[in-house]
Amino acid sequence: MSLLVVGSVALDSVETPFGARENVLGGSATYFSAAASLLTKVSVVGVVGDDFPIGDLEFLRKRGVELDGLEKVAGRTFRWKGKYGFDLNAAQTLDTQLNVFEKFEPKLSAQARKAERIFLGNIDPELQLRVLDQATNAKLVCADTMNFWITGKRATLLKLLPRVDVLMVNDGEVRQLAGEANVIKAARAAQRMGAKSVVVKRGEYGALLVDGEASFYAPAFPTPDVIDPTGAGDSFAGGFLGLLDRLNTRDPAALRQATVMGSTIASFTVEQFSLDRLRDLTLTDVRRRFDSFRSLVHFEELPGHFG
Amino acid sequence: MSLLVVGSVALDSVETPFGARENVLGGSATYFSAAASLLTKVSVVGVVGDDFPIGDLEFLRKRGVELDGLEKVAGRTFRWKGKYGFDLNAAQTLDTQLNVFEKFEPKLSAQARKAERIFLGNIDPELQLRVLDQATNAKLVCADTMNFWITGKRATLLKLLPRVDVLMVNDGEVRQLAGEANVIKAARAAQRMGAKSVVVKRGEYGALLVDGEASFYAPAFPTPDVIDPTGAGDSFAGGFLGLLDRLNTRDPAALRQATVMGSTIASFTVEQFSLDRLRDLTLTDVRRRFDSFRSLVHFEELPGHFG
Repeated sequence: MSLLVVGSVALDSVETPFGARENVLGGSATYFSAAASLLTKVSVVGVVGDDFPIGDLEFLRKRGVELDGLEKVAGRTFRWKGKYGFDLNAAQTLDTQLNVFEKFEPKLSAQARKAERIFLGNIDPELQLRVLDQATNAKLVCADTMNFWITGKRATLLKLLPRVDVLMVNDGEVRQLAGEANVIKAARAAQRMGAKSVVVKRGEYGALLVDGEASFYAPAFPTPDVIDPTGAGDSFAGGFLGLLDRLNTRDPAALRQATVMGSTIASFTVEQFSLDRLRDLTLTDVRRRFDSFRSLVHFEELPGHFG
Repeated sequence: MSLLVVGSVALDSVETPFGARENVLGGSATYFSAAASLLTKVSVVGVVGDDFPIGDLEFLRKRGVELDGLEKVAGRTFRWKGKYGFDLNAAQTLDTQLNVFEKFEPKLSAQARKAERIFLGNIDPELQLRVLDQATNAKLVCADTMNFWITGKRATLLKLLPRVDVLMVNDGEVRQLAGEANVIKAARAAQRMGAKSVVVKRGEYGALLVDGEASFYAPAFPTPDVIDPTGAGDSFAGGFLGLLDRLNTRDPAALRQATVMGSTIASFTVEQFSLDRLRDLTLTDVRRRFDSFRSLVHFEELPGHFG
């Protein structure tokens, strides 16, 4: 079992109705590996600048995350600045500085090339393809993308999709990719473009898995303590792939359980700024909430019901 | 078992990206009773004008809906005109003509006063209170409301809530009522105001039931054929209360099953304009989709999972 993530390690500045943080730890690979490392062994491929406080990742190393693939180069680390209103589902991006990420060229170590499961964070689909070209042992590929690539690098994205087992995007992205307003129809269109399964992330409303002909819906765990939604999607992906790697299968039941795991871990992420909640999270905490999740969706038929 | 609905019977003009209809059958009591009558016996209290094509309700009468409480008075029927964009979650109201509804004074027949379960459609909370004063046999009261009453008749609404078993509102309404952005916290605040349980309707994202300390989430059934969302909330209420009346209980398991039933029937409503889909809907159709619903949320834990 081995899981690889390729994505950003960033410094974020975030403002929500509940407070603000400047230059705190962020990035898709960071959130992903913090979540996945609760469940399995993860390797990170990414890049940071010489301004990056590498000690901030010590908690990941302690959890067994392999950081040798995280290059440190001259220059400034990727930075994102965003703001959320009371509708915490959508961030307003105030500033994006690619910095060292601009010339990022993912290089997989001999070890990383052997990864069986791969998460391609939201980066240029050309780079995503180059990762897959190196990862010849991959059994399951999960990819994120965004509006910028859907419109700007569509042809490349269409080359990527047939190599993707699980496309993991939000409502707006799958609609834009498919040119179709109905999310179910849009997900099916993405399947016809080549993605075997599609997970549509819907923020506080949960996530929809379209796998073959079947659909599965996992609500977001209804936590009353939502402080900062940054990283929810990437920690969802970390929980999802972390569990699949641990289970070492991608059968339909595993994809469902993984969707619930993604939703469970993401619900912790949003309870504090940055990775503050994920930092001390234990598998026991996750276990407890996963069990509540069962009761959140459980129903039975009473005698005398109908039909 | 006996179920009473008090609400509007209307003529709607609706435009969605998929077409338009003028002066078609609508109204909260209409959608509610079309849904609930699949499951139990329903009585309607409402008012129409002398322009109302009463034959349009013949399908309800055939399904056993008691329409004696639907007054016919001189004047024009309540009319609503609205438009939906591709985001089908929110209608833009273009015109509302209360007409005969302006002087509506609900009068319950001897039979209606004996109703055990009551749905108070979205009308002036003063009228909702007057219905409850007449319905001395009520075991379970479910009420809808809207922004107009939350701000304009707040004191009256706060008198109503302690008499409500299930407050059934949408995201924005429960947030506005509670002055709280987090939906879970807002639902709990509504419980502190007196509502025993709260169902938060979230359009295409499903519905959240907060019952005592427990939460239950039913996604919307992911139908690819969404044509017109008008009436989804009221037919949700009809399925919900129709099943509770049939089961003759309000224990926690029944409320959960009723939430799934509401979501199931609402998913049919949106597949055609007006009540076109509900008109020919059978309990067999409902049964089939209710069963798919189970698979939509079902997950299990595979061996070797975690924790």
